[in-house]
Amino acid sequence: MTKVTAQMSVSLDGCYTGPRDPRGEQDMKGWMRGPEAPGFFRVTRWAVDAMAWRERQGFAGGEQSADSEIVAEMFASAGAYVMGRRMFDAGEVPWGEEPPFRAPVFVVTHRPREVLERRGGTSFTFVTEGPERAVELARAAAGDKDVAVAGGGELLRQVLAAGLLDQLDLHIAPVLLGEGQRLFGPGLGLGPGEGIELAPVRVVESPGVTHVRYTVTGRSELVLDDRGASGELVGPATAGQ
Amino acid sequence: MTKVTAQMSVSLDGCYTGPRDPRGEQDMKGWMRGPEAPGFFRVTRWAVDAMAWRERQGFAGGEQSADSEIVAEMFASAGAYVMGRRMFDAGEVPWGEEPPFRAPVFVVTHRPREVLERRGGTSFTFVTEGPERAVELARAAAGDKDVAVAGGGELLRQVLAAGLLDQLDLHIAPVLLGEGQRLFGPGLGLGPGEGIELAPVRVVESPGVTHVRYTVTGRSELVLDDRGASGELVGPATAGQ
Repeated sequence: MTKVTAQMSVSLDGCYTGPRDPRGEQDMKGWMRGPEAPGFFRVTRWAVDAMAWRERQGFAGGEQSADSEIVAEMFASAGAYVMGRRMFDAGEVPWGEEPPFRAPVFVVTHRPREVLERRGGTSFTFVTEGPERAVELARAAAGDKDVAVAGGGELLRQVLAAGLLDQLDLHIAPVLLGEGQRLFGPGLGLGPGEGIELAPVRVVESPGVTHVRYTVTGRSELVLDDRGASGELVGPATAGQ
Repeated sequence: MTKVTAQMSVSLDGCYTGPRDPRGEQDMKGWMRGPEAPGFFRVTRWAVDAMAWRERQGFAGGEQSADSEIVAEMFASAGAYVMGRRMFDAGEVPWGEEPPFRAPVFVVTHRPREVLERRGGTSFTFVTEGPERAVELARAAAGDKDVAVAGGGELLRQVLAAGLLDQLDLHIAPVLLGEGQRLFGPGLGLGPGEGIELAPVRVVESPGVTHVRYTVTGRSELVLDDRGASGELVGPATAGQ
């Protein structure tokens, strides 16, 4: 059955890229010199080194590793993608004539545009009716494979907040960035005392990154308890209660 | 050899408790009704359910589980503790006459106070010369065991920023809180393009929490790279580069 999945590389302090550029959106050269790039490259380094990622980009080399298997699995399971407009804009030129997706990609945007057909099975369809509609279209296009939310962070938060996400793969890079754009946070639209519950279903360890797969359980009220003190008290610590 | 360690329970979005109470510091009853408590209880629930934690608190019941072994290991490895003033203030009354530490605790504070001796091997020494001095005193008291930074978050950030932390155990609870006090962030005093590198050395999986142990490598410049494109280009994607 088709699941809606997302995978994201984040730092240990929850950032998926460096701080947003105060100069506004930049071309690739400007972006490379801006504050986003160092954090972005650091958290995605594990994938860049992986053979399966390099093959998809047409780069030589790379390591055959647990990380590479994770990348291969990710590409193999996605029958269609949903993508934010900002990520598409950043990728359109560098991805070139044969982008690495090899599947239909649905870009959530406010600007209508004709479908863009690329070689190798990738197409970009521009959806102006919001993330829910993009997920619906991607679901129809995915066959029995999954719909992958390719990013960026804002789209992922929208999909999660709308209750559309079934599975989340976090690739946790062992670095603290201090400052940067946080993957989660207030954008989830949670009320006080409310959380989104998940369940860890798989961990893959690697020297440079920890891959944790979660199933999304959903919104739930955070329960107050009394630290277990309501159970029968035994032993010396009762003296001080 | 004595290591300086820390362990902290955090949500998947990096919070160790709910948002700080806008009313200021509260007594225990007030705190329980405030915004911090629901997040705090949620991220620490795994420990409260663990038999080894309950035994130390003098509570009956609990589960003998991987989580319980983690708690037991944590208590067994600590020869002395370093603690923030705010955490001590919150714990002093509920911990009672026989606190769960059973070792010397060094509290970083601005207010001098006499050493507080408790039953079961716990003592609280109030250190007014800052976190480095507290770590030094704890190191001398720890014998061949470790110095554990018991929290809170502010003290942990100070110890980490000062380069004093050797090992970090994160207990990652599978929940998104949206808002709350972040364990890391700007308080680390990192410059632009700078990070603190760690290395994952152990993962213990459990249904309710993922325990990841990191060795702290240290401050390091984040290296810009070109996504691997400088390697020899092969295959179709070169067409678009």
